[in-house]
Amino acid sequence: MPNYGQFELIRRSSRSMARRGRIHTRHGSVETPVFMPVGTQGTVKALTPANLQEIGAEIILANTYHLYLRPGHELIRELGGLHGFMGWRRPILTDSGGFQIFSLGTLASIKEEGATFRSHLDGSAHFLSPEDAINVQKALNTDIMMCLDTCIPYPATWEETRRATELTGRWARRSLKVKKDNGQLLFGIVQGGMFPDLRRQAAEELVDAGFDGYALGGLSVGEPKPVMQDIIAETVPLLPQNLPIYVMGVGTPEDLVEGVYRGVDMFDCVMPTRNARNGMLFTSFGRSVIKNARFRNDPNPVDNQCTCYTCRNFSRAYLRHLYMSREILAYHLNTIHNVHYFVSLFREIQRAIDEDRFEDFRREFYSLRTEGT
Amino acid sequence: MPNYGQFELIRRSSRSMARRGRIHTRHGSVETPVFMPVGTQGTVKALTPANLQEIGAEIILANTYHLYLRPGHELIRELGGLHGFMGWRRPILTDSGGFQIFSLGTLASIKEEGATFRSHLDGSAHFLSPEDAINVQKALNTDIMMCLDTCIPYPATWEETRRATELTGRWARRSLKVKKDNGQLLFGIVQGGMFPDLRRQAAEELVDAGFDGYALGGLSVGEPKPVMQDIIAETVPLLPQNLPIYVMGVGTPEDLVEGVYRGVDMFDCVMPTRNARNGMLFTSFGRSVIKNARFRNDPNPVDNQCTCYTCRNFSRAYLRHLYMSREILAYHLNTIHNVHYFVSLFREIQRAIDEDRFEDFRREFYSLRTEGT
Repeated sequence: MPNYGQFELIRRSSRSMARRGRIHTRHGSVETPVFMPVGTQGTVKALTPANLQEIGAEIILANTYHLYLRPGHELIRELGGLHGFMGWRRPILTDSGGFQIFSLGTLASIKEEGATFRSHLDGSAHFLSPEDAINVQKALNTDIMMCLDTCIPYPATWEETRRATELTGRWARRSLKVKKDNGQLLFGIVQGGMFPDLRRQAAEELVDAGFDGYALGGLSVGEPKPVMQDIIAETVPLLPQNLPIYVMGVGTPEDLVEGVYRGVDMFDCVMPTRNARNGMLFTSFGRSVIKNARFRNDPNPVDNQCTCYTCRNFSRAYLRHLYMSREILAYHLNTIHNVHYFVSLFREIQRAIDEDRFEDFRREFYSLRTEGT
Repeated sequence: MPNYGQFELIRRSSRSMARRGRIHTRHGSVETPVFMPVGTQGTVKALTPANLQEIGAEIILANTYHLYLRPGHELIRELGGLHGFMGWRRPILTDSGGFQIFSLGTLASIKEEGATFRSHLDGSAHFLSPEDAINVQKALNTDIMMCLDTCIPYPATWEETRRATELTGRWARRSLKVKKDNGQLLFGIVQGGMFPDLRRQAAEELVDAGFDGYALGGLSVGEPKPVMQDIIAETVPLLPQNLPIYVMGVGTPEDLVEGVYRGVDMFDCVMPTRNARNGMLFTSFGRSVIKNARFRNDPNPVDNQCTCYTCRNFSRAYLRHLYMSREILAYHLNTIHNVHYFVSLFREIQRAIDEDRFEDFRREFYSLRTEGT
């Protein structure tokens, strides 16, 4: 029986940093590279656990901040942890709440001890220390926990970035101290903004502290894509290659392929679910806006390469009708398709790395993306 | 091979008018008594066809008025009729649009030739004759079509009711003339308001004209429940007992049991779907309002007698959380439960009539309904 948190490195690409791995958790193993659909409030929006299983999702992400405020982590603990509460039997990663608190803007303030903020739901005042963030995630009893981090706006000065990055480092060490040895994994978050020297300093400090995996935070916050990809390319080699590497909150299908190319194992993003609810569908040939008038009487599926429930059963014309009529089924069917697209993309990526042809896959991936609206 | 529209009378209760039957349509047969979930705009709100199949729904209802306005019946014809368009392979009954046009109030006016009305979507002007209503339903290519009828407000005078009822009768004869012999069934609608003599007159006229089945319209429009049940009890015996009898737009579980007791074979109502979206769940012991604070940490399913996907997998506490958080999954899971409740109720009713114990079933049904909120 594997140790929880053991990361099996299965194969390295011979022509890039891309790699195939497997993360062992208390709720089963996860093949990497992997995309984690986001289940903000204890549900991947508009999908049932059965839908996610059929799609083939192996791990989902949930938001500590949201669940802490509503329904509350103690309630979830009482009801069997997040797995029991939401009826999802496979692995769950929880973020720490840092990004959501940061996103509150003036409703939050960060001090050495932790974060003070007001709830976006009812304005109530809260204080969350790095230790609290771990304890909340212990109550949720998820498989992979993240350290509370301080996020950095873009743009930010070197000095601002240094201060926030160093505070994140001190919080990470405090988080480690309250981690129990119960099989829940704890990942550190490398901050450092857009400054390679601060990213290096953060990586060294966190690696020295010793985590079960490492995440890159503070990306996809408005910086140009090449800057993001350079930060990833420069930071990944500084992290232990025998542990999983996760880029948080990224991104488009193109960003994901580029991240894999640079050695990233794990990704999460609200894009497939949020865009589905806005009628934007991902396909093998690019993006498709379902309300487009040219789909009015189109009998074809969204993507004739796609094997999801939506594409097997419904035409663009029907999906357009549902979307124009604001039917709940539109959100459900669109989300099935988009999450299936992301999960299937990673199944193809995994197969390509297994067969040591990921770089060819990457070229073909771009060559197909000529159509769309 | 049965003729489409043949109604097999399988069994009569020995102690009431309740009866078991089977309606044969071009898309398979339907066991009666039956409840038809409502799919207003070409979707039973918040459910996929796969959900409906798993629940065991055998026939659904769709609204001619809504589909005529959006996406338009010609578009649906082009895309394979309503079955092909919405991906539902079992029987579909379409109403005629009469009730929706009537519900537009001052936006509609009724003349001998037909109904003039303004779209609730964009205010555009439309004219729909009884012949048009049939032709729209032919384009939708559904299995059971309804004649355009003129609805009657409650209360209404005898004279108002007589005029509307007689116009409905003339429209019904005009509808018959444009019916093709393509296997689509056509039902007449018995109006007559709350006046037994006008119900009798309407029934006689429609039976004389000769339809594939008969509906009672204009019930559950605000009249007291005993009045509704008396009208049903007095009208059903006036209709051919070798054809299906349908009460439109009714009702609560109690109304349905009472309707079956009085000899009705078919029902439809938005109650299970609409109430689900408002957080009101039907159970074997009464109704349950899911946002109720006492469900906050309740680990039990909505109804421990229920075998639906929702009750097999989720607690009241989780459903309450989803509802309070306005998650789309709340509407989906609540709708699965409520439609399952109605469909299962009819499966139990069918079994009870098969075993000639429907009257005992009816007594037990009431005796259980003691709890709830």
